[in-house]
Amino acid sequence: MIRVVILGAGNIAQHLYTVFTKSEAIQVVQVYNRSQKALQSFTNVATTTRLKELRDADVYIIAVADDAIASVANKLPFTNRLVVHTSGSASMHVLHKKNRRGVFYPLQTFTKGKEVDFSQIPLCLEAREKTDFKVLQQLADAIGSPSYKISSEQRRALHVSAVFVNNFSNHLYRIAHEICEANNVPFQILHPLIQETAHKITTLTPYMAQTGPAKRGDQKTIDDHLEKLDKDIHKEIYTLLTQSIAKTYGREKL
Amino acid sequence: MIRVVILGAGNIAQHLYTVFTKSEAIQVVQVYNRSQKALQSFTNVATTTRLKELRDADVYIIAVADDAIASVANKLPFTNRLVVHTSGSASMHVLHKKNRRGVFYPLQTFTKGKEVDFSQIPLCLEAREKTDFKVLQQLADAIGSPSYKISSEQRRALHVSAVFVNNFSNHLYRIAHEICEANNVPFQILHPLIQETAHKITTLTPYMAQTGPAKRGDQKTIDDHLEKLDKDIHKEIYTLLTQSIAKTYGREKL
Ligand SMILES: NC(=O)c1ccc[n+]([C@@H]2O[C@H](COP(=O)([O-])OP(=O)(O)OC[C@H]3O[C@@H](n4cnc5c(N)ncnc54)[C@H](OP(=O)(O)O)[C@@H]3O)[C@@H](O)[C@H]2O)c1
Ligand SMILES: NC(=O)c1ccc[n+]([C@@H]2O[C@H](COP(=O)([O-])OP(=O)(O)OC[C@H]3O[C@@H](n4cnc5c(N)ncnc54)[C@H](OP(=O)(O)O)[C@@H]3O)[C@@H](O)[C@H]2O)c1
Repeated sequence: MIRVVILGAGNIAQHLYTVFTKSEAIQVVQVYNRSQKALQSFTNVATTTRLKELRDADVYIIAVADDAIASVANKLPFTNRLVVHTSGSASMHVLHKKNRRGVFYPLQTFTKGKEVDFSQIPLCLEAREKTDFKVLQQLADAIGSPSYKISSEQRRALHVSAVFVNNFSNHLYRIAHEICEANNVPFQILHPLIQETAHKITTLTPYMAQTGPAKRGDQKTIDDHLEKLDKDIHKEIYTLLTQSIAKTYGREKL
Repeated sequence: MIRVVILGAGNIAQHLYTVFTKSEAIQVVQVYNRSQKALQSFTNVATTTRLKELRDADVYIIAVADDAIASVANKLPFTNRLVVHTSGSASMHVLHKKNRRGVFYPLQTFTKGKEVDFSQIPLCLEAREKTDFKVLQQLADAIGSPSYKISSEQRRALHVSAVFVNNFSNHLYRIAHEICEANNVPFQILHPLIQETAHKITTLTPYMAQTGPAKRGDQKTIDDHLEKLDKDIHKEIYTLLTQSIAKTYGREKL
């Protein structure tokens, strides 16, 4: 039985709490949050707003806002215990070295209230001590998540990559939505294409999966598209991504 | 029974042929292609390389390269029959007006050899005559595809939108793949995030689904990401998309 204390009561804290309580191998001993309000949704578990009341556990998972991780870790009233954070962007070393440090980063986008299937969520694990790494691995196994050994530097690279595939792709969807609305076309027509585009790269590399005018070097279609776009920022994005694709396929001139 | 002649023997022609032959309501009378080679994969159907041998049918579907649609349509040895193309970017008017014109555009990305589920493929339909539109609608219904009435101008908007959500998103996946490789991280770690990002917008608008440093105005993370990126073109894309997201959420300054 791995005993866990969760620090934080936000999005990630709630999702971890929900999945941990489903596992026989994990006991959530306590949930801490700086304020009482968000703790109200944690029923059937001891809660506290005082760090000095923290109970004994095998792992302390700090799932608070990135900026607050260091200050929470600094204020922990004990030493030499396993303390991890859940952030993709923070280094393991923002955690105070009075405790044994690690990272338990779920590489996924979480939506408040929407249940998630942890078997589909890769966990990026890091720890200074081998035995601590094992504990984190057992935690991942207990909730059925695939886990990877990822250094802070690699996690940083993954976090940037995640911005490209998640934040930026979503923004491209947003632009398409705008164009559809401006032309009285229902955005749902594009849903299957969006799904298939995301699905394709599970069987082909993105390099192989690429299609379209930029790859073909089809200047006529590119010009037509640029003419059709109303907003300058959309034209700029179209032009830059077209150039980047052209470059990728050895068409420097486009 | 709708009698169809397919002109072209490429990707789309093959997928249409496959799905048409599964429907009791459709008879593929003949497949034409300018050259013999690609016709070899069409078995159990009459084929020809000569336009003057084209048989009688209710619909002629021109599924050839965009640039070749007009010339094939011009050379058709008959008049006043229903002739459609399958292109997202070509106007209906590239078809010669000696025939009744229309468009039958499947809004999806097709991969050679990979079977597709037409119930998941929206068909954008256009026709000058109401009765012709009905025939196209029956064709769509017969293969179980949702269909939409889309004008040439709307189709043009959809085609640009498709470039954003398909070509450009795929290129962002490619960039993420490059970053992962440069850091010895398996790209598959990002697969679930890519799927979930695409899935999210079926229940939330992309505007609502947006997350990340650009939306939050988290300059520290943005700077860290830019520092982590090696290639100038990746930095440029990161910066432009970050600005565009910031603008969308009223953060002009970022
Ligand atoms: N959301 C995701 O999709 C996602 C995915 C992977 C990893 N993560 C990481 O998970 C961690 C938590 O993110 P989240 O999305 O769960 O955040 P969230 O929903 O915004 O919750 C933030 C939590 O941090 C607490 N907090 C904020 N400032 C604090 C401070 N100065 N001192 C103490 N506690 C403070 C909040 O307490 P109050 O209730 O008192 O405000 C709340 O419990 C972050 O490191 C994030 O990078 C998030
Ligand atoms: N692929 C997609 O994902 C997709 C999706 C939606 C719509 N479309 C549209 O569907 C149409 C066909 O695309 P595709 O992907 O099937 O193309 P494709 O696989 O490249 O096949 C092209 C076809 O056009 C013929 N062709 C090329 N140049 C010609 C010319 N000058 N005269 C006569 N025939 C010529 C080729 O004949 P040969 O065999 O002799 O070369 C071949 O049959 C295009 O309008 C395209 O925009 C494609």
